[in-house]
Amino acid sequence: MKRMVLAIFVRNTSGVLTRVTSLFSRRGYNIDSLTVGETLDPGTSRITVTFTGDELMCSQIKKQVEKLIDVIEIIDLTQTEAVYRELVLVKVSADPQSRASVIEIANVFRAKVIDIASQTVVMELTGDSSKTNAFVEILKPYGIIELIKTGLTGVVRGSASFGGVDD
Amino acid sequence: MKRMVLAIFVRNTSGVLTRVTSLFSRRGYNIDSLTVGETLDPGTSRITVTFTGDELMCSQIKKQVEKLIDVIEIIDLTQTEAVYRELVLVKVSADPQSRASVIEIANVFRAKVIDIASQTVVMELTGDSSKTNAFVEILKPYGIIELIKTGLTGVVRGSASFGGVDD
Repeated sequence: MKRMVLAIFVRNTSGVLTRVTSLFSRRGYNIDSLTVGETLDPGTSRITVTFTGDELMCSQIKKQVEKLIDVIEIIDLTQTEAVYRELVLVKVSADPQSRASVIEIANVFRAKVIDIASQTVVMELTGDSSKTNAFVEILKPYGIIELIKTGLTGVVRGSASFGGVDD
Repeated sequence: MKRMVLAIFVRNTSGVLTRVTSLFSRRGYNIDSLTVGETLDPGTSRITVTFTGDELMCSQIKKQVEKLIDVIEIIDLTQTEAVYRELVLVKVSADPQSRASVIEIANVFRAKVIDIASQTVVMELTGDSSKTNAFVEILKPYGIIELIKTGLTGVVRGSASFGGVDD
């Protein structure tokens, strides 16, 4: 069992996301993270799904997703040379005494401080899961108030293009 | 009609995401972006949904989502002092001649270059939608090969905490 990452290009219709997620839930597969966002083509969205499974599960779900209405293309990113990124927002307890050491950690991880209040600091960090997890672990002793992850997305290295439109 | 952003805290079950998205699709509301990721509590995930609507649509959908099984809490981020962020990955055509000016744009926007190949550059940028849209617009003349957005997420400023567990 390992982390599988699928990029699914779909037409922007109100039901397509439900059709995709219900395929996973009907099989009892738990989606670890999911992002849906625009692509270059305003009529096309990209869904990136991560779940824990094996090659067989992945190829089965791929075949079924491909058959869904409004699905244009599906890419198994784990079969490609992809770079993965997720965005993490962390709100940490930080009073004036501890604030400097929290910001020091942010600098080491190249995280950005996006809000400071009297008792809290909010930081954003992008990276693959191992980096973001390490960042969260080292902040735990300060007291994490809120942790928000967008879920993983990924892009294939080099000039390969998927879901492209205007070329 | 404006952009509405809801943060929905749910228990990690395989069907809950489908229940949430199908509420939107049954009403014909098109989800503009959606992210699902872990929170501090391994048993709880956070879904952040953006859609175009008005206050009435938003309060109706809120009431219905609240009633769903495995939904813990729902926050209308547009009613709070929130900071919004999305992660964008952009793959741009860049040969050795144009590469320097593409990287110059990345520096101005504080984007990070995450991959360089002979004919392409991949960059990551975080920010609110107006910043990421401006970045994408200025890169268009170079030729965007792939554009990936995680979808918007947001955190409430100050020490307010939602979906927290261990305090």
